[in-house]
Amino acid sequence: MLPPGVTWRPVRRHTADDGLSPERDDAVAIEEPLDIRVSGDTVAVTLRTPGADRFLVTGFLFAEGLIHGAEDLGGLVHCGRPGEEGYGNTVEVTPAPGLVLDLERVSATRRGTLTTAACGVCGRRSVDDLVAACHPVPPGPLFSASVLANAPERLRGTQLNFAHTGGVHAAAALDAHGEVLAAFEDVGRHNAVDKVVGALVLEHGLRSARTALKDSPRPALLVVSGRVGFDILQKAAVARIPIVASVSAATSLAIDLAGRAGITLATFVRGGRFNVYSHPERLRED
Amino acid sequence: MLPPGVTWRPVRRHTADDGLSPERDDAVAIEEPLDIRVSGDTVAVTLRTPGADRFLVTGFLFAEGLIHGAEDLGGLVHCGRPGEEGYGNTVEVTPAPGLVLDLERVSATRRGTLTTAACGVCGRRSVDDLVAACHPVPPGPLFSASVLANAPERLRGTQLNFAHTGGVHAAAALDAHGEVLAAFEDVGRHNAVDKVVGALVLEHGLRSARTALKDSPRPALLVVSGRVGFDILQKAAVARIPIVASVSAATSLAIDLAGRAGITLATFVRGGRFNVYSHPERLRED
Repeated sequence: MLPPGVTWRPVRRHTADDGLSPERDDAVAIEEPLDIRVSGDTVAVTLRTPGADRFLVTGFLFAEGLIHGAEDLGGLVHCGRPGEEGYGNTVEVTPAPGLVLDLERVSATRRGTLTTAACGVCGRRSVDDLVAACHPVPPGPLFSASVLANAPERLRGTQLNFAHTGGVHAAAALDAHGEVLAAFEDVGRHNAVDKVVGALVLEHGLRSARTALKDSPRPALLVVSGRVGFDILQKAAVARIPIVASVSAATSLAIDLAGRAGITLATFVRGGRFNVYSHPERLRED
Repeated sequence: MLPPGVTWRPVRRHTADDGLSPERDDAVAIEEPLDIRVSGDTVAVTLRTPGADRFLVTGFLFAEGLIHGAEDLGGLVHCGRPGEEGYGNTVEVTPAPGLVLDLERVSATRRGTLTTAACGVCGRRSVDDLVAACHPVPPGPLFSASVLANAPERLRGTQLNFAHTGGVHAAAALDAHGEVLAAFEDVGRHNAVDKVVGALVLEHGLRSARTALKDSPRPALLVVSGRVGFDILQKAAVARIPIVASVSAATSLAIDLAGRAGITLATFVRGGRFNVYSHPERLRED
């Protein structure tokens, strides 16, 4: 049986010796558009793997600065009726009673600048602008270097869809002991991170720097399967996650932002080794 | 010496045995924002690897349906003066004399729907909408299966930045004999494809289906280093490229669009083998 997020499509294999094989079924990652509406207005459409839409939308609104915690959300439901065509691809968000979400914030940053939250620029043209918009992550806590080195293994253990398709990204948040708090796969790198952050907001009480209390829970590490660009770092910064680890590379802008935002950035975490570009003082040798 | 698109950042390596190494220089892919303006109005900001901005902007406008060929462009220049901070990160486009680009097309599709061209949804909510907007690619030409199997090798030969950083995507257009017409690397999958399409438009006379002449040149194959989602397929469809080949996987939506748009989609092109999801009739066994 296929996990959710994976479907069949007919495929023919080609080899030099045998040419085209007969058609057989191949497991591929599902990609469908999700229309995110707040009080009836579309604020974004993203191409995502269906599933965990509640987390995706929450993480997206959180990263955009539209909500600061679970208490800002009233309702969050799929529009339409099960069985109708396109059902499941539109989500309607109702803010908490009395709260008006500042959609102008998204529109203003979109219109004429960027564009999609998924791409993370959000109208901020430079690292300076972005850092000014984010509270830097405070120092600490210490984190075991060997647990960091092992984070991709923990992530891989959650990647059911990748095992079937070889074609989806994944992200997970770990706590200070390296236990998985939330993990998701998606055809979009950004969506996987949005789903993780949304789960932290809805199920672990994550709040933005603006509304966080002293004892608000904070995940220790975000591990991602793909490259770390500015966009991924920005989402980690808004979620105040102190360590970002990737199996792959980081861009110059991500490295610069990590340094400024107080985030420990580790890349090429493979085979017990990794690179550190910023804030190595969080690492504890075992 | 580093190729353009790559820069140095200080890094420390970590191994279980030795802990953190002293700081040394590491080659990383450059990521910077590019503000794309038409007649003074920003139509998008994309995070890209600087270089080939003229092609990136042209390919972007072409994929969005704002221009239909090189003749629609008047000027395309970087704003500001060399040496100023941020110089090189804003491009100003002037349409050909007498032509007004339909920016409402972008605004309308952006505002309230999507969002970024880079993400390829462009306000079209379904494969049906998209296919309706694209002319399907006509049948033919026949293409050698072994040349297709070798396309990633041809692409890899152009990937100077990847060799240094392990962290950039690449795309190339090949002609019917497998020769590289245009090849680019970029931190964004979509940007690499936009640069390729832009080069085809500016240097090879590529025109949209709406304005193409019978003998307008047409590249035979687009090969990409990353996954093929809806967004990449859409750009290939607008550029009327009949074959898309990827080293990696495709999503369900890309497969569906390829079938509908008349495009041969091959994935996991590795070690002489590949998968074909649509229109295998273009393949010629050697």
